[in-house]
Amino acid sequence: MPMTSNRPYLVRACYEWIVDNHCIPYILVDASQQAVSVPSHYVKNGQIVLNISPSAVKMLDINNEAIVCEGRFGGKVATLFVPMAALMALYAKENGQGMVFSTGQPQQEQWPGSRHESARLSAKPPRAGKSSKP
Amino acid sequence: MPMTSNRPYLVRACYEWIVDNHCIPYILVDASQQAVSVPSHYVKNGQIVLNISPSAVKMLDINNEAIVCEGRFGGKVATLFVPMAALMALYAKENGQGMVFSTGQPQQEQWPGSRHESARLSAKPPRAGKSSKP
Repeated sequence: MPMTSNRPYLVRACYEWIVDNHCIPYILVDASQQAVSVPSHYVKNGQIVLNISPSAVKMLDINNEAIVCEGRFGGKVATLFVPMAALMALYAKENGQGMVFSTGQPQQEQWPGSRHESARLSAKPPRAGKSSKP
Repeated sequence: MPMTSNRPYLVRACYEWIVDNHCIPYILVDASQQAVSVPSHYVKNGQIVLNISPSAVKMLDINNEAIVCEGRFGGKVATLFVPMAALMALYAKENGQGMVFSTGQPQQEQWPGSRHESARLSAKPPRAGKSSKP
């Protein structure tokens, strides 16, 4: 059975890492994709950058389908809806550290180190140290 | 200012992804490292594999320093303590999907896609779409 996309899990992890380090999380969004809802006035070349720090937006919800929150643009409240497939990057404003995604249907991202080692893990199922059920 | 290690954030993300997909999360631990506490009887070649699924262990806490939980081995309860630096891999038993780490002092892992693109993100700070404070 194929695994679900790991992108939302990585996005939540990276967001928390950036915020815990007192940096400002920015997302780069492909605004041309269906179901994206962002203030069109700020879209440039089909893309928009949004500050989704806790002090910039309200009601932030990074679920397995989309990033949803409320922000203010030019004094007006707007609900932002960014499907995972439209997310191009999540990074810290201060130093650019973070993640970059290929857009389109969200695919499986490479977990760190997994590219070269997954064969080894698959080939050697563990036989020792398995905890019995409590 | 350097960012803190992102390894704990990735570990929590990968763990949740594996469990949400109804797979069993296994960790591979370098049992030779200082501060590691695991049942020594099950250590082979300095390593141990542990099942840390919700049904196998209790009180699981994946914090920024270590994986801590209680497991049963041969009928006896043991507290497991695995510092992030001693974690060699986290993967699904069923298909080997997950992460592999180099051991030793936890370093910064590569976020997906960041290897080739971080320069681009650093070079172009966003100028549009910044939300004002609510």
